Parts: sequence; C-alpha cells; structure tokens
Amino acid sequence: MNYKEITAKDNPVIKLITGLQTSAKTRRESGLFVLEGLRLLSDAAENGVRFEKLIVSASAAEKYAKDVEIFAQNAAELIRIPDHLFEKISDTKSPQGVCAVCRTVTRAAGEIDRNGKYVLLDGVADPANVGAIARTGEALGISGIILTGNACDPYAPKTLRASMGTLLRLPLFFWENIGENPGLTLYACVVEKTAKDIGTLSFGPGSAIVIGNEANGISEAVKEAADHCVTVPMRGKAESLNAAAAAAIAIWEMMK
Amino acid sequence: MNYKEITAKDNPVIKLITGLQTSAKTRRESGLFVLEGLRLLSDAAENGVRFEKLIVSASAAEKYAKDVEIFAQNAAELIRIPDHLFEKISDTKSPQGVCAVCRTVTRAAGEIDRNGKYVLLDGVADPANVGAIARTGEALGISGIILTGNACDPYAPKTLRASMGTLLRLPLFFWENIGENPGLTLYACVVEKTAKDIGTLSFGPGSAIVIGNEANGISEAVKEAADHCVTVPMRGKAESLNAAAAAAIAIWEMMK
Repeated sequence: MNYKEITAKDNPVIKLITGLQTSAKTRRESGLFVLEGLRLLSDAAENGVRFEKLIVSASAAEKYAKDVEIFAQNAAELIRIPDHLFEKISDTKSPQGVCAVCRTVTRAAGEIDRNGKYVLLDGVADPANVGAIARTGEALGISGIILTGNACDPYAPKTLRASMGTLLRLPLFFWENIGENPGLTLYACVVEKTAKDIGTLSFGPGSAIVIGNEANGISEAVKEAADHCVTVPMRGKAESLNAAAAAAIAIWEMMK
Repeated sequence: MNYKEITAKDNPVIKLITGLQTSAKTRRESGLFVLEGLRLLSDAAENGVRFEKLIVSASAAEKYAKDVEIFAQNAAELIRIPDHLFEKISDTKSPQGVCAVCRTVTRAAGEIDRNGKYVLLDGVADPANVGAIARTGEALGISGIILTGNACDPYAPKTLRASMGTLLRLPLFFWENIGENPGLTLYACVVEKTAKDIGTLSFGPGSAIVIGNEANGISEAVKEAADHCVTVPMRGKAESLNAAAAAAIAIWEMMK
C-alpha cells in the first residue's frame, strides 16, 4: 500500500480531523466530516460515499490490512499515522484505528420531492435521538430527513454512530427559510390535548412529521408554518414520550 | 433533623449500598434497591414508595434541607455521611448527595390481570432500552411490565434513571415458569417477513407484546409459548429497528 506518513501532531491534516471531530462550525464551513470505525466506513463505501482521505493507525494498517485495501480503492489519499496520534484524533475511547474524511451531502429545500414522506427535525438536540430517529425512519421507508437551522448536526460523530450509518443513506435537506414551505403538508407533533390524535389521520403523498426540541418542543416559527398540530395521546403520569419514541409512532402512522 | 452519622467506609450500611448499586444478585437476595437523586426520590415518595434508609451527604443536608425534610417523613432511618463517602457510593459522576434504600415490589405471574395489557421483556439487556420501554408503556397506559428470568434488572440504577421513574409506578411481574402462560395472549415481536404485520391486528383485553434481546431476539422457550408472531414491516436497508423503537410502535398498536 502506498501510504503517506504523518507523524507530527501539528500537521494540518491532524488539525483538520480534530476540528471536524469536535466542531460543528468546522464541519459546516469546510463541508467535510469524519467517519470512524470499520462498520461505518463499510456502510459508507457501499452507499457511494467517497473518502477524501483515509487515515489508518500503524497497528490498524496491519490488523485490518484487507479492509484497508478495499477502503483504499474508494479513497483519494491514504495516510498512515502512529497509534498515539490516532488516539488523539479519535472520538472513541478504544479506537479501531481507521477513519475517513468525507464530503457532506446536504441538499437545499428546493430539491425535496413533493410526493415524498419526510421527517423534519426542528431543534432536536440529543445526537442519540437524531440517530435513533434516522434509524427508525430509514427502516420504515421515509424519503429523507429535513433539518432546520437549529437542529443537531447530523454529521457529528455521536449522531452518525447512533444512526448506525443510516444517516449516510438517507437524503438530508436543510430548510433555511421557514416562511417558505418546501411544498409538503407539515404535521407538528406536540404535547397538547387539543391537538389531533395521530392515530386518526391519513397521510397523503407530500407529508412531513415535525419533531421538536426535547425540552422546548417545536419553535414558534415552525409551528406557524405547520398545517396540523398532532399528538400521541397519553394516559399515564409521564410528562411526555421520549422524542425518539414519539417519532417512531408518528413515522409509523405516516408510513403505514 | 435527627441524623445518624456514619463516617467509616467499611460501615455495613455503606457496604450494603455499594452492593445494591453494583450487583443485581445483591438486590435480588436482599429485596432492596437504591434510588438516587432528588427527582427519582420525589417520584418515589409521590407513588408511595417507602424509604428504608434515607442517606444524605453533609453538603446536601444543607443545600437541599427542605427536600430532605420532606423525604425524611417517608423514611424509617435518616443517615448523614461525609461528601467523599457519598461520592464512593454514588452511581453518578456528579452526585446530588441524596439517595434512599427501598424495598423492591415484584409480583408473581399469578397476580397478572387477565384483562390487562402488558409488555413482556424477554432478555432485553440494555438498561436504556428497558427504561425507554417502561417510559413509553406508562405514557400509553399499559397495565404493567412482565419480566422473564433473563431480563435486565429493572431495579438497576441505570434502568431506573432511563425510565424517568416510570418503573416505580408500573406494576412489575416475574414470569418464572415459561411453560405456564399467565393467562394472556402473547404477541412475539420478531424480525421475520412471514410474521403478521402488527398494523393489521386488533388486540383484545388480556394481551402482551413480547420484546426480545437486542442481539438474539426472543428465546425459543418464550417463542413457543407465544400465540402469535408479529412484526413491524421494514422497507429500508436497516437490519432491524432498535428495540425501544419497535416496542414503541408495538405498544401503540396494542393500546390504541
């Protein structure tokens, strides 16, 4: 294998990766993100995600030689670094020693399929919830995920891991101008007894379920843009369903 | 306040609490468990859970004096320990300094209401999943949770926290003799295309959704005891829904 060797911790590549692992701003400005671990890299390669850089630790280059050879065919650049340096750039406690820099693919709201069925995340903040919702959405066949400006970054390492790679397969859209509806009927999921019971509705083509922030719910601007307020009726003393559980039920109702 | 003071780290009370925090065996054999944090203790007190022992750190005795006074009315014994000792017995990184020893309340399968609607957990191993399923189940109005012998301990600290206290409100049953059906129609949730679509069924009184282990699914013995195999049909490439998401959809269908 034809490796480029990097050993200095202040090398620009190392700095770039550290930035991408920790900063949503760096990801947004560069249009790049980091994928880490054999499983996510396999998923990505299978789904046509190109590796701008493939970075392996010295140990991983030996231990996972076969995997690295396959991944390398999909990579523009192949870099080997010492194990201690990989530990520094890794987002996990026990790194496998393989990661890749990839280009984010987010589309504008104009590209949304007006006959599709979507999940719109408005300020969902917990990476575990965003990942879980993506996983459920993909399993049930949604057309993609739409994000408002204040949603958790889908390309954050924790979010990608929690999604089990499904965020790499689902089309992602950014909805920047909240006043301009992207051409979908929006169903805002709220915790209000006056909202419509989600089990009584029928969702036609061109629908989107809106899931809001865990603590504060859906923002006023998005609520105003929504066509319907819907709810999962509750009977117990629980204050609310977890965002991922509410989303699972809502997506199920929209897709069935 | 009339505190008993404990300062020695090898005091039997300290040893008991450490054991209850870390060992399912200790909890099972003693019939006791530990609740930690103001929120869970409030929930418990409101739901009639008696505190055998209430333990507060020196700082918490001052900082949360009012809460402690209310909790103390519900406690058989009130104990104050130094902060460093509380850190030792705590299950969290930044303890609030308040915990209680309580008695577990699990009922035999014979006490199950044959007209109720239940969730049966067969080997669900992740405390986060058990907690999330309890939270969803309580919100949607299930009658209780039934556990087989190999399920994750509902009284483990992580499980209680993940359930947001709902495990203290839901009746819990142990189903020991799998050959003897507790008098319910059992719907085993599986990932098999030949199983019945869960969206097409109607669940009468006396039903239970069965959720299996995250990696291995439902055990053979429970599958044999089940009346129906049901599934949430999937369209995407995801290998399976997360256990908590599948459970949310299944519980929703059973309860609506």
